[in-house]
Amino acid sequence: MKFSSKYLEDAVEAFATLPGIGRKSALRLALHLLKQDGAVTTQFAEALKTMRAGIRECEKCHNLADGKQCTICADPRRRTEIICVVETVRDVMAIEETGQFRGVYHVLGGVISPLDGIGPSDLQIESLLNRIPKEGIQELIMAISPTIEGETTIYYIANQLKNSPVQVSTIARGVAFGGELEYADELTLGRSIITRIPYQNKQG
Amino acid sequence: MKFSSKYLEDAVEAFATLPGIGRKSALRLALHLLKQDGAVTTQFAEALKTMRAGIRECEKCHNLADGKQCTICADPRRRTEIICVVETVRDVMAIEETGQFRGVYHVLGGVISPLDGIGPSDLQIESLLNRIPKEGIQELIMAISPTIEGETTIYYIANQLKNSPVQVSTIARGVAFGGELEYADELTLGRSIITRIPYQNKQG
Repeated sequence: MKFSSKYLEDAVEAFATLPGIGRKSALRLALHLLKQDGAVTTQFAEALKTMRAGIRECEKCHNLADGKQCTICADPRRRTEIICVVETVRDVMAIEETGQFRGVYHVLGGVISPLDGIGPSDLQIESLLNRIPKEGIQELIMAISPTIEGETTIYYIANQLKNSPVQVSTIARGVAFGGELEYADELTLGRSIITRIPYQNKQG
Repeated sequence: MKFSSKYLEDAVEAFATLPGIGRKSALRLALHLLKQDGAVTTQFAEALKTMRAGIRECEKCHNLADGKQCTICADPRRRTEIICVVETVRDVMAIEETGQFRGVYHVLGGVISPLDGIGPSDLQIESLLNRIPKEGIQELIMAISPTIEGETTIYYIANQLKNSPVQVSTIARGVAFGGELEYADELTLGRSIITRIPYQNKQG
């Protein structure tokens, strides 16, 4: 790509460092900003800088927060005795989106993965274990990806808690709603038969 | 999308105003910046602000420039008697990419489009006509998208020059009709400059 302006080139390079943005898209974005009023670019740049400088980790759950605690931990209407344990802040957002959970969260920051050199001490596991007696936690819901690393992480945490009265559960695994049975993978389908649940209509 | 941080929400909103970036992509980009060192975001924001504040229009050809003139107009090795007339700065970049043209450019800023309320006075046509005697221009290559609006624009400019000795040519019709110039492949675009043909209206 040949630029007649070094300023433009620098801006395109900057955009192109972002994930999923190639140089053609980067050029489109830079030229878009040039077409807009100067205030648009200033506002955009300031929003990013303010975010990067201002955002913190919630001291309780390690979710993203503006102050010491995130809006979920600070919300008095949440049930504080039940923690949903997730890998990332995106998982928190995904679960909040469902509107099905009224407890609080704990963001591990990943899963145990020896191949990537990530051990228990690299994750927020100790702070999770500390929260249990301190906050009177009764249940941990492990909303962790059903991968080998995820299962290892769940096993590790459950093992640390084998002498604790806290209940540990995992989110249900099975065939997705609206999914075609024939396209479900063997493992999921097999497990969903083993962990079958009584049909509610039949129970009632 | 439910945010636990207003700073994050503002940054996501800012990214989502860019063309082709939805809210999910915007979130991915914002979280990417949060994972990086703070200096990455500062540099990124500064590159955009510097570009927006520093970039100008070349006083000769209306291409993007850092100073009074763009790097092409300021380059003494370019042939100054032949102007390639294009719609946008992206077209300049696309033609430069081919390496087939050693003259200079003139960026119209669009094409005549009565439906969009764009007339000749909204484009850099007058400044193009002024350049011809002033700079001793011998040929205009019209590298305009082969659309109805593009053809209208070529016709209009050629008509203004019917009593002038300047030769008007168009890039060869290697570019598909109805196609956008910036998406043409390099080879086609390069060949179409070499095999340019005299504009018929001018001949007759």
